[in-house]
Amino acid sequence: MRIEIICTGDEILTGKTINTNFSHISRKLQEVGLAVRWGTTVGDDRESLIEAFRLAGERADTVIVNGGLGPTVDDLSQEIAAKAAGVGLVLNEHWLERIEALFRRHGLIMQPNNRKQALLPETAELIDNPIGTACGFELDIGRARFYFTPGVPKELHLMLDEQIVPRLLARGGTMTVARVKRFHAFGLGESHVDSLLEGIENLAPDSSVKLGFQTHYPELEIKLSVRGSALDELLRRLEPIEAEVRRRLGNFIVAEDDDTVESIVITTLARQQASLAVAETLTGGLIAARLAQLPGAESVFRRGLVAPVGSQLEYILGLAGGRLSAGPLNEEALVEAARALLIQSGATHALVALADHADGADLQAPGFTLWFAIATLERFAVRSSQPRLIGGDWLRAGAAEMGLDSLRRFLQDLPVYERIDFENA
Amino acid sequence: MRIEIICTGDEILTGKTINTNFSHISRKLQEVGLAVRWGTTVGDDRESLIEAFRLAGERADTVIVNGGLGPTVDDLSQEIAAKAAGVGLVLNEHWLERIEALFRRHGLIMQPNNRKQALLPETAELIDNPIGTACGFELDIGRARFYFTPGVPKELHLMLDEQIVPRLLARGGTMTVARVKRFHAFGLGESHVDSLLEGIENLAPDSSVKLGFQTHYPELEIKLSVRGSALDELLRRLEPIEAEVRRRLGNFIVAEDDDTVESIVITTLARQQASLAVAETLTGGLIAARLAQLPGAESVFRRGLVAPVGSQLEYILGLAGGRLSAGPLNEEALVEAARALLIQSGATHALVALADHADGADLQAPGFTLWFAIATLERFAVRSSQPRLIGGDWLRAGAAEMGLDSLRRFLQDLPVYERIDFENA
Repeated sequence: MRIEIICTGDEILTGKTINTNFSHISRKLQEVGLAVRWGTTVGDDRESLIEAFRLAGERADTVIVNGGLGPTVDDLSQEIAAKAAGVGLVLNEHWLERIEALFRRHGLIMQPNNRKQALLPETAELIDNPIGTACGFELDIGRARFYFTPGVPKELHLMLDEQIVPRLLARGGTMTVARVKRFHAFGLGESHVDSLLEGIENLAPDSSVKLGFQTHYPELEIKLSVRGSALDELLRRLEPIEAEVRRRLGNFIVAEDDDTVESIVITTLARQQASLAVAETLTGGLIAARLAQLPGAESVFRRGLVAPVGSQLEYILGLAGGRLSAGPLNEEALVEAARALLIQSGATHALVALADHADGADLQAPGFTLWFAIATLERFAVRSSQPRLIGGDWLRAGAAEMGLDSLRRFLQDLPVYERIDFENA
Repeated sequence: MRIEIICTGDEILTGKTINTNFSHISRKLQEVGLAVRWGTTVGDDRESLIEAFRLAGERADTVIVNGGLGPTVDDLSQEIAAKAAGVGLVLNEHWLERIEALFRRHGLIMQPNNRKQALLPETAELIDNPIGTACGFELDIGRARFYFTPGVPKELHLMLDEQIVPRLLARGGTMTVARVKRFHAFGLGESHVDSLLEGIENLAPDSSVKLGFQTHYPELEIKLSVRGSALDELLRRLEPIEAEVRRRLGNFIVAEDDDTVESIVITTLARQQASLAVAETLTGGLIAARLAQLPGAESVFRRGLVAPVGSQLEYILGLAGGRLSAGPLNEEALVEAARALLIQSGATHALVALADHADGADLQAPGFTLWFAIATLERFAVRSSQPRLIGGDWLRAGAAEMGLDSLRRFLQDLPVYERIDFENA
């Protein structure tokens, strides 16, 4: 399949809105084995749109068009699609009724310009949009089949998953079911993971499982994409490969699928009827913010303390002056701070995330060290790290991840320290 | 000028990397009055690249190409540029020396493949890249002038500002200086600001000042772009318009240019030799995180407390049980909490950001209210807000902004409450 994506709209063309729809569409197609060959971006402009449709109709056989299906005068996709296909526009009564019903349900009065959203090219086949007033549609222009999709991300995502991808897969042959298994890893670089997982695709017959990576700093997402004709057979085919990924990446997998390292922390603590207090300096509230927003956090997360420098944290925790601020930190001082937090908060678990030079004086100094301690009344663990530095914001985000991951490891009885790719030995 | 942007690279085409370079280039050109007409995205693939260059050379007169200048085999921009222009590649000795010097300076050994980065099409004119090994270059292909730029965002940004934009402006005529004045507003929607600023462009002669907006939720950026032949004349032309923007938007402007609401808070506190403690529930550390990471925060920001629910904050602050958790919050309870924080922390200023139902039970309930209090030993202010809700993450980010903005207003002796567009009356 020669696939092209055409993104329309002045907001995208002028750079006012960053084009995340393009990458979303391309990634989704990639995951089911469909490669995009060409991307085009044009504004809400008749001349450019018709030229873009004409060109894509010549050089591609499948074209996804995004945007331009709204009710306003600058939404031109239906009009130009009809023109490019050499057909007229007709009112789709079915869709008009759907829009009217949607407005009624929300107690709103439909504006006359919404009627425009039910005008489709004569030869178009409707593609359902269960959550919006802009329907999708497909039709032939030139030598290609065009699929028109709404610009609202939520509507696009649903339409892609439920309508477009299955239609494309059906057109491509009999492979009509697709699934993506996702692992989230922290601590291993992409090329490292790539070499660790070498040959893993070959564990599936006829290379039907594809391996892919996506960086979401500081994590790496590992994706196994598989296509087949029946879901149960496809899950059976994935199973040994999933197990092998877990075996090879081991404790560096922090979560799978929709879970995150912080959701694992919260659910594990909840299952143990445990509770948590956090104190942080360099990360300045990032650890607390990742935990506090989760559903269920209110029954687990007791307290977050943020202090920019160690001397202020000493004061908050009632430690002797200089314990966290005079000279480099050490394991003993960390444990003392974690225990003080434990007692002060009444939580069952305390996490302390500190750093030498947390006053920002010199994050680039040789020997600059991050320190993490986790304590309960019975046990504790300390992890230190000399990061390979990559600037303030990145360092903070990486340090927050390491703090959460250390806690996850502690809760799962895994070694809290295993050297990661982004720190010095 | 008919401008096209061509973005190259498999990472962009497959959606692995979100294409922020496209929007950056388009926005920068827009700011100096140059509109982009067409965007093309292709992978690291000879056939697609040459076709993209050929097409752009026919339909545009100015083409910005991004990416493909690296040292590896899949970096093809120079090779395909030469082919499309019908010329050979020659080694640019000057650039080779620059690369060698860069490696020497960092004590590294240049790899043989970096030599490739000094191979340029015979007819190309070099464009300097002071911070990387990939030089830019310009040359004619078809009827258009092509400008090749590196994919590394930092290098691209600098090259655009210092090299490409001035070259394009010079080619376009005598208007060779450009400037963008930026205001950051919180509390007014884009269409509201648009109507408040109606006609403001007409205050400059011959519409030489352009007004633009960019949403950075929860803030709106208002940009005045101006071009001219001399900087001082241009600043003189901007001055009355800047003053008029300030007059019309009043206290809703939270910062200008490179400042942010949090940097204003930190610098204002530092100037007053004051210090700050923050306690937050719903925002879960977002306010602390925005403040703690700023340069200078270590001498001003004393303490951040994060508690997911009011009952835990009562405990931390030593308040009577139920004060922040039994029934809806009220002004008296807020002031009590802010004063307790003030005394406990020893800071001169305390900010408390709370919410009814902060346990996340029902953020959508009618009457759900955000509460903010600021206290010093001498005075206090309380602001409450019933937000028009837009989901958990957005609500939290908006609440953090409102807390910081309330503090800014307090510090600047402005009214802490002025109704914003995103809350009920």
